[in-house]
Amino acid sequence: MSVGVVVSLDEGKKSASVKPLVELTSADMARVNELILSKAGSNVEMIPEIANHLISSGGKRLRPMLTLAAAQMFGYSGDSHVKLATSVEFMHTATLLHDDVVDESDLRRGKKTARMIWGNQASVLVGDFLLGQAFRMMVDVGSIDALDILSTAASVIAEGEVWQLAAAKNMETTEDEYLQVIKAKTAALFSAAAEVGPVIAGATRAERNALRSYGTNLGLAFQLVDDALDYGGNSKDLGKNTGDDFREGKLTLPVILAYRRGTAAEREFWKGAIEDGVSGDAELEKATGLMIRHGAIADTVGRARHFGDIARDAIAPLKSTPQKQALLEVIDFCISRVV
Amino acid sequence: MSVGVVVSLDEGKKSASVKPLVELTSADMARVNELILSKAGSNVEMIPEIANHLISSGGKRLRPMLTLAAAQMFGYSGDSHVKLATSVEFMHTATLLHDDVVDESDLRRGKKTARMIWGNQASVLVGDFLLGQAFRMMVDVGSIDALDILSTAASVIAEGEVWQLAAAKNMETTEDEYLQVIKAKTAALFSAAAEVGPVIAGATRAERNALRSYGTNLGLAFQLVDDALDYGGNSKDLGKNTGDDFREGKLTLPVILAYRRGTAAEREFWKGAIEDGVSGDAELEKATGLMIRHGAIADTVGRARHFGDIARDAIAPLKSTPQKQALLEVIDFCISRVV
Repeated sequence: MSVGVVVSLDEGKKSASVKPLVELTSADMARVNELILSKAGSNVEMIPEIANHLISSGGKRLRPMLTLAAAQMFGYSGDSHVKLATSVEFMHTATLLHDDVVDESDLRRGKKTARMIWGNQASVLVGDFLLGQAFRMMVDVGSIDALDILSTAASVIAEGEVWQLAAAKNMETTEDEYLQVIKAKTAALFSAAAEVGPVIAGATRAERNALRSYGTNLGLAFQLVDDALDYGGNSKDLGKNTGDDFREGKLTLPVILAYRRGTAAEREFWKGAIEDGVSGDAELEKATGLMIRHGAIADTVGRARHFGDIARDAIAPLKSTPQKQALLEVIDFCISRVV
Repeated sequence: MSVGVVVSLDEGKKSASVKPLVELTSADMARVNELILSKAGSNVEMIPEIANHLISSGGKRLRPMLTLAAAQMFGYSGDSHVKLATSVEFMHTATLLHDDVVDESDLRRGKKTARMIWGNQASVLVGDFLLGQAFRMMVDVGSIDALDILSTAASVIAEGEVWQLAAAKNMETTEDEYLQVIKAKTAALFSAAAEVGPVIAGATRAERNALRSYGTNLGLAFQLVDDALDYGGNSKDLGKNTGDDFREGKLTLPVILAYRRGTAAEREFWKGAIEDGVSGDAELEKATGLMIRHGAIADTVGRARHFGDIARDAIAPLKSTPQKQALLEVIDFCISRVV
């Protein structure tokens, strides 16, 4: 079963790639990178230091690429998509800074987190600064619709994070409730990133809704694959250690499925691990074994495929363009990603 | 000298009051309060709990009142000023939540801080949520000028906080540098709160600038009086304990003045207190004594008066209205306040 999961994760790898998206957006991404450096600049040295630490830490920059491609596919030719893509990346970066403080994380993508180098205080405040800069860039673009979409996303993300904090250790959390959390925490920004493209390109309401739905469902698939990888991915490729979620007592879908499908004794084990923090190496091995026995990892990937299918159908009616093809391929890439 | 300070703080008390401002804005403030409750609402229980804790903690709500009065004085009659005033208060509340985490504060206005009750994590995230809600309300108003002013303020405030964090313990900080920090940390929001009033009322550029300058200088005066009160105010009235800044090793203007005017031995004492945290009750008594000897508290209040004078002249050319009179009285109230 474990092998089965690994194979299913690898299967799409050779065929699906993020490359077409990277190539289509590379000229615009160069402008995004310039804008990032300029807007993360400050006379207060610590701000560019921390911002550069995060920005150079090897993320895929999937979110800003979504904004750029989604604007391009409707023929947009101005520079507002570059500003909005940069805003999206800053919102994401601010969230990472605050998340690491909230989760007390030591490592992100194998590198020390900002809070470990500069402290929690600086991480909170530089996150606030980047969020402020993100809003200034959106205001500079001047589209009330884009502002509405992105400011709503900011609220929804934070609300989802508080919800997760409050419910984090409750083993009775259902799959539905968990999906609501990741819809807010992760999918809301994917959704907003994709929707603002057609918005500034002056696309129709139906086209906006298509990209919005694509983003939401891609975000859900992305997060669920992330959850699965934590119990079965290749930690070197992922840049995070397998088992990080477990050690931090994070309630993710593989845990929820294994718990709900487990025996009474197994449920006691899960409560001990997640609620009481009995989550060392021996427990991780046992946890992974239980997940494999109950098909919890494979089925988490299955759920991700389900949302990937919805994302695919969401943009199916749109005119065929290289951007559309690239966005479709990104769905498979996300589901098959080992990066 | 100590008595002299207390007298000068009390002098204006009988004459200057915040009452006219409170009365002129009371109908609008009732709408602000409704909007606060509604926009701090969430199915995630912890959010309204924390928001209500802060909102009911007895702040004067000076900032939203500035927005309301500044809109009224130019004949504004819509409801956008209520939304913007609520946004301003949410921005302030979010800043308080994050500040308390950064400063590791246990008490605010004599009540336990949110982070002591719900934890640092919730304080960070609920602050993010309130900031997101603030932006949504601004977007709802739809004035790009107001959005520009308030989003710029959000960036500037955060940048000032990071600056203070980096420079916090450096005794060589000059008065000029300190003024830059409080201009960003405190005065930027006062300034934005006052300026968005004329902006949505469609006032002239000169009128906007007048209110902007009024807000900036009132904010500077307000902060400097706060600094002075920490070493000489009545702690019961202020709702914070005298000496809090000292115990936390905060570099404020009274400290900067006493340090720069002190002997070499005194400067060693200040370094020990602020840089190395040797700041118990005995040190606080010595610190206050040194400040009085060097006129540091009285001169901090003197500097506050200077900025109060600039605020007064800023709105002097405006047509006489009850709102203008109330805003003028607030300057004296801030300088003479013992709440």
